[in-house]
Amino acid sequence: MKKILLSLAATLLLCAAAFAQQALFGAASTASPVINEDGTVTFRLQDRKAISVQLTGEFLPTQKIETPRGTYETQGVVNLKEGENGVWEYTTEAPVKPELYYYSFLVDGKRVLDQSNVFVYRDVSTLYSVLLVPGDRADLYAIHRVPHGTVSKVWYPSKTAGFDRRLTVYTPAGYEKSKTRYPVVYILHGIGGDEDAWVTQGRATQILDNLIAQGKAKPMIAVFTNGNISQEAAPLENSMGYVNPTMSLPQTMEGTFEHAFPEIVDFIDAHYRTIAKKQSRAICGLSMGGFHTLYTTMNNPDMFNYSGMFSAAIGTGSERQAAHPEIYDNLDGKLATYFSKKPALLWIGIGKTDFLINANNEFRAKLDKAGYPYTYMETDGGHIWRNWRIYLTEFLPLLFQ
Amino acid sequence: MKKILLSLAATLLLCAAAFAQQALFGAASTASPVINEDGTVTFRLQDRKAISVQLTGEFLPTQKIETPRGTYETQGVVNLKEGENGVWEYTTEAPVKPELYYYSFLVDGKRVLDQSNVFVYRDVSTLYSVLLVPGDRADLYAIHRVPHGTVSKVWYPSKTAGFDRRLTVYTPAGYEKSKTRYPVVYILHGIGGDEDAWVTQGRATQILDNLIAQGKAKPMIAVFTNGNISQEAAPLENSMGYVNPTMSLPQTMEGTFEHAFPEIVDFIDAHYRTIAKKQSRAICGLSMGGFHTLYTTMNNPDMFNYSGMFSAAIGTGSERQAAHPEIYDNLDGKLATYFSKKPALLWIGIGKTDFLINANNEFRAKLDKAGYPYTYMETDGGHIWRNWRIYLTEFLPLLFQ
Repeated sequence: MKKILLSLAATLLLCAAAFAQQALFGAASTASPVINEDGTVTFRLQDRKAISVQLTGEFLPTQKIETPRGTYETQGVVNLKEGENGVWEYTTEAPVKPELYYYSFLVDGKRVLDQSNVFVYRDVSTLYSVLLVPGDRADLYAIHRVPHGTVSKVWYPSKTAGFDRRLTVYTPAGYEKSKTRYPVVYILHGIGGDEDAWVTQGRATQILDNLIAQGKAKPMIAVFTNGNISQEAAPLENSMGYVNPTMSLPQTMEGTFEHAFPEIVDFIDAHYRTIAKKQSRAICGLSMGGFHTLYTTMNNPDMFNYSGMFSAAIGTGSERQAAHPEIYDNLDGKLATYFSKKPALLWIGIGKTDFLINANNEFRAKLDKAGYPYTYMETDGGHIWRNWRIYLTEFLPLLFQ
Repeated sequence: MKKILLSLAATLLLCAAAFAQQALFGAASTASPVINEDGTVTFRLQDRKAISVQLTGEFLPTQKIETPRGTYETQGVVNLKEGENGVWEYTTEAPVKPELYYYSFLVDGKRVLDQSNVFVYRDVSTLYSVLLVPGDRADLYAIHRVPHGTVSKVWYPSKTAGFDRRLTVYTPAGYEKSKTRYPVVYILHGIGGDEDAWVTQGRATQILDNLIAQGKAKPMIAVFTNGNISQEAAPLENSMGYVNPTMSLPQTMEGTFEHAFPEIVDFIDAHYRTIAKKQSRAICGLSMGGFHTLYTTMNNPDMFNYSGMFSAAIGTGSERQAAHPEIYDNLDGKLATYFSKKPALLWIGIGKTDFLINANNEFRAKLDKAGYPYTYMETDGGHIWRNWRIYLTEFLPLLFQ
């Protein structure tokens, strides 16, 4: 068989004007990243002309930088060593802990992606090379031979927006052939994100597949909304053409999205075999999505039995210039109504060094003072995807039990 | 509203250890590519240290290169001009014709992606920056405000492979709420591709949305298979972890995939509202997928009424070491049986400079000699995605009429 393929490859090679022919010969000659047996990771980049090649990634120890204005911490940078044929290499000193990390190379100070790694995520408007080290909790982020749910890109007609908008919908393994109805969790992204963010960077569908396969979460439908109500869909998935992804879209935190949220719930209940009642509905979100979660929950106290605020962007003052002031008005009264209906779970998670921790502490103090129950998780680190994946793995098993 | 966002952005900036915080500030400062009003396109790259910055792309005129072994044609390369702040720029001399193009920059001879463009496609194991100039036929490749079908990643249990395998399934706009049954087209990728190739590089779901919205194609279900039977799913979408995409996978052109094809058709007929009969079933594929199309059709003469071979990889000798020789045996007899049943369409398309044109001409001579009817399209260019997109736009309107 190999011979045959080689013969086909040779035939293709003979085709002189073969440029862009599915890039059959563009494969990099140096494997990177390689997770070694001892848990260290080797990175390689081939560049015969470079003067220096460096690596920066979330798995490296942070560096302290002294400046006239004070000390700050930044991501670590290490040097690669040049070997034969211009192949630069670096192996981590210690095993890399299981986690999903972003990294980049710096070639003569210029940031470039790992040429040998097609695993790339877009974070707002920047592409990063991705390293996923499975194991421990990060095993939930990897793909295993377990039953897989279906992941669909679905368009719903938004009366509020005046055009069709895209959702990502996860239906659990077995949904298509079963006749049962399922509970639904709505999972919201942060500013600069879209309906793709949680299923790429957030590894949410892998987390769902794995938790459900392990019996740790109930089979459920998950709906990933696009919280930028002015946008049909993620960048390059809408009719705008080349509009660079940005975090400064209009109508993100002024009430229109929360106001319009019930039309998404109605669409999902009309198109999927859902259990269309509060007991079987959950919502959660990160950063701006945590803010959306709070206000969507409180303005619809009979809609969600479970709400999760992950590093929620509360206290940012966004409410003050609302297009729909009724969404943000009288939070205390809404909280009283909401808690009087005894919801099953209000879950709050935030990192110790998150810039939003004070705002979240103030919010929790308000809940404490009124004696409202909630579940709280504080993790290391800041306003980062690592924490949001952790929060999702903690939140999902608590739903619909 | 803008003020609020700026204030939130300022808050985020104040967060000193803000690395990897959704990359809020990684946005490039120079727009690229920009399609200008006169139809020219401007490309920009910022690099203060570069000695030379060049651009190579499918839209540039090809170059003739003289070598001791003869002359060959290669993709054109142009120089960018350095302006202020290390921003290098190039504007095409003439309007760029509507089409989807791949391009790259060469910084001091080193290939890099356009930092300002998150529109990137993976072709086997290489990432390319993408330029889509809408207009003419390429308007079919763009996203418009028309009803959109649903695009799903679905796993089917493969008895042949012994594990679950992933399909991409397109259901046309309105499928979810309608009660009607739909015809199905199966669309197959080439060597090195997978179930993602046609919906990314091939723009197939945009083509379907647009042709259906214009009334030029019937509403239909489209199924994008993974023709690498040893593989669960596309690279990084399977349980193998970091296995670099490659074109030399086992079991691609030795009969196992074609032998197992009916289990995919059974799965689709069992899980979707299909019209489960020959009159409402089509198949097509590019390169290796054209080869798969030929043999899947001929071995199942009652399965497909419409078959499309796009730059089909016939005549490569792959059949000679088949794991399932019965798939490739007695093609002449199978052709006779197939044509005796009067199929609606055998469609063949290939580029004038495709390295497979002789093999396709030989196949057509065989059909001609026997008096078997087929439709033929010959286009400029070679074994390239531009042609495969064109063939798909030609093939789909002919189905289920």
